[in-house]
Amino acid sequence: MSESIYVGVDLGGTSIKVGICNQEGQLLLTHEGPTETEKGVHIVVDNIVKYVHEIVEKSPYDWDQLVGVGAGVAGFTNVVEGIIILAPNIGFRDVPIRSLLEERLGKPVKIDNDANVAALGEVWSGAGRGVDNCICYTLGTGVGGGIILNGKIYQGFSGLAGEIGHVSVVPDLEAIQCGCGKKGCLETVSSATGIIRMANDAVARGDRTTLATVENMNAKEVFDAAKAGDEVAVRIVNRAAFYLGKSMAIVAAVLNPEVFIVGGGVSYAGDILFNEVREVYAKLTPDPLQRGVSILPALLGNNAGVVGAAGLHLRS
Amino acid sequence: MSESIYVGVDLGGTSIKVGICNQEGQLLLTHEGPTETEKGVHIVVDNIVKYVHEIVEKSPYDWDQLVGVGAGVAGFTNVVEGIIILAPNIGFRDVPIRSLLEERLGKPVKIDNDANVAALGEVWSGAGRGVDNCICYTLGTGVGGGIILNGKIYQGFSGLAGEIGHVSVVPDLEAIQCGCGKKGCLETVSSATGIIRMANDAVARGDRTTLATVENMNAKEVFDAAKAGDEVAVRIVNRAAFYLGKSMAIVAAVLNPEVFIVGGGVSYAGDILFNEVREVYAKLTPDPLQRGVSILPALLGNNAGVVGAAGLHLRS
Repeated sequence: MSESIYVGVDLGGTSIKVGICNQEGQLLLTHEGPTETEKGVHIVVDNIVKYVHEIVEKSPYDWDQLVGVGAGVAGFTNVVEGIIILAPNIGFRDVPIRSLLEERLGKPVKIDNDANVAALGEVWSGAGRGVDNCICYTLGTGVGGGIILNGKIYQGFSGLAGEIGHVSVVPDLEAIQCGCGKKGCLETVSSATGIIRMANDAVARGDRTTLATVENMNAKEVFDAAKAGDEVAVRIVNRAAFYLGKSMAIVAAVLNPEVFIVGGGVSYAGDILFNEVREVYAKLTPDPLQRGVSILPALLGNNAGVVGAAGLHLRS
Repeated sequence: MSESIYVGVDLGGTSIKVGICNQEGQLLLTHEGPTETEKGVHIVVDNIVKYVHEIVEKSPYDWDQLVGVGAGVAGFTNVVEGIIILAPNIGFRDVPIRSLLEERLGKPVKIDNDANVAALGEVWSGAGRGVDNCICYTLGTGVGGGIILNGKIYQGFSGLAGEIGHVSVVPDLEAIQCGCGKKGCLETVSSATGIIRMANDAVARGDRTTLATVENMNAKEVFDAAKAGDEVAVRIVNRAAFYLGKSMAIVAAVLNPEVFIVGGGVSYAGDILFNEVREVYAKLTPDPLQRGVSILPALLGNNAGVVGAAGLHLRS
C-alpha cells in the first residue's frame, strides 16, 4: 500500500465527480456529490475539498500517499496561474482555484479545461494508451478538442489550442453561422446540435423520413433511423462523418498524429459513424500521412475527465 | 574568444552553404562551395567536411569552440537515426549522414529537413525571435511548412508534421489536382507554381491583362502587374492570399500559435500579399484566436537554413 495515488476532479455544473488513479492511470475508485453552484464559490470549493477527503477515506489508501490533485472544468482556464477565468455552468469567473484548493488540501493542485483533461485521460489509460501524439475530439453539444503532443497536453500561445470545432470545413455555399461568430465550422455539422439541426431541417423541408414522427429530436434518434436504413438519416450521418473525416485530413497534414480519438455522445453511434469517417480520411489524406494512423472511439466514457485530471501531475 | 560556436550546413543540389552561429543564433560568417552531386555520396560528404573545416579556419574561432554541426536538406529525413531517406536533388537515398559526418568531423551532428531548419532559424534569430509557438510557411515552387512548438521543431508521429501545403482549402468546385494525389491543397494556389498557373490560365482564357504580353511567366511578374493596378493580377494575388489566410485560420484553431512567418520567393511580394492575408485571417478566425497573433514576413532570407541547422543542437 505504499504506491502513489492521484485524485482527479471533474467539476461540473450539477455534480462534482472525483476519482483515484494509480501512477499507471488505472482508475481505482470514484465518488460523486452535488456541486451546489447556487451557493457560491466558497461552498463549491468546500464541496471539492470534502469529496476529495471522502474518497481517500473510503479507499484503502492513506492521505500521505496522495501526490496531487488535478481538476478539469468546462470553461476557460489559465493553467499557468491556476485560475478558472470563466466557467458559465459553475458560475465561476476569475477564481484562483489552484491556490484555494492547495491551501485547503495541503497538496499540489493543477487544473485544465475538460477537453484537455479528457484527451489526457484517453492517452494515459484509454484508447490512446502509450501514444505520444494524439488528437481527441469530443462530439457533444459542441465539438471540443484536446491535443496531446510528445505525451503532454499542448496548450498553445494563449491556452486556446485544440479548438478543433472551429476549423472551417463546410464550403461557403452550404455553411451556416457558428456560435463563435464565423461560418462553416466543424461544430455546425458534426456536433449533436448540428445533427439535430440537419434532421429538423430535413423534416421541415418535407423529406420522406421516419424522423418526421420523432417528437423531441436527438442525435441518437437520427443514428437509430440511419441504422434502420432511413435514407435521409443515413445522408445526415454521412455528412457529419464527412466533415469530421475532412477535419482529420487537415489536422494530419499539419500535425501528423498517430491516433485520432473520438468521444462524446455522438461517438456512441459506433460503426455507422466510424466506418464513414475512416473512409473519408483515407480519401482526403496524402498516403504517407495515412500510414500507421488510427481513428478510434474513446474508451473511458464519462470517466475520461477524472482520469485525465488525476494525470495532470504526471503529464503536464 | 571562449564562446561556443555552432556550424549550420545547408545542403543543396548545386551548392553547399555553411555558416557559423554563436549561441544566440547570430550568424557570424558564411562560406559556400559546389555540392558535386554527380560525383556521388562520398565526394559530397568530403565536400561538407572540407567546407566546415574551411569556415572555422577562416574565422577567428578555434575548432575546440565548435560544439556541434547541424545540416538541413530538401528531402525526407529520419532525424532520430540521422539518415537522409530521400533527397532527389542531391541523389541521396538512405544515407546515414549523421554517422558519416560525426566520424569525419569528430563533433556531434544533427540533421533535419529544409523547411524545419528554416523555421527554427527564424524563431532562433529571425522574425520569430523569442517566440515559443510559431508556424512557418515557405512559399516557393511548393508550399513547405515548419512547426515550432514550445521553442522546438515539432516532428509528428512519423516525422511528417508541417505539411501545410497539403491542407485542403480550395472548395471542390474550384479545386485542381495537387502533386500529392489529392485535390484542393494550399500548394495548388499559394505557391509560385500555383500563381503562375492562375496567370497562364487567365491569359489563355483571354482575360484583359498586361500579363498577356509576358513571355516566361513567373510569380514576380504577377506581383509587379498587381502593384501596377492590373485587375486580373490583383485577383490572382488576392486568391493566393485568401487561401493562405484561410489556412492560417484553420491552423490557429488547432494550434493557437503566436506568430505565423511567411518566407520563400512568393513572400517578397510584400504588402500587397501580407495586407490581404492579414485581412482574411481577421475575417475567418474567431476573435480570441486573433488576440496577440502576428503574421510576419521571414527575416533571414536564404540564410534561414544555415542558421536553423546550426541551432539544431540547442533547439531539438
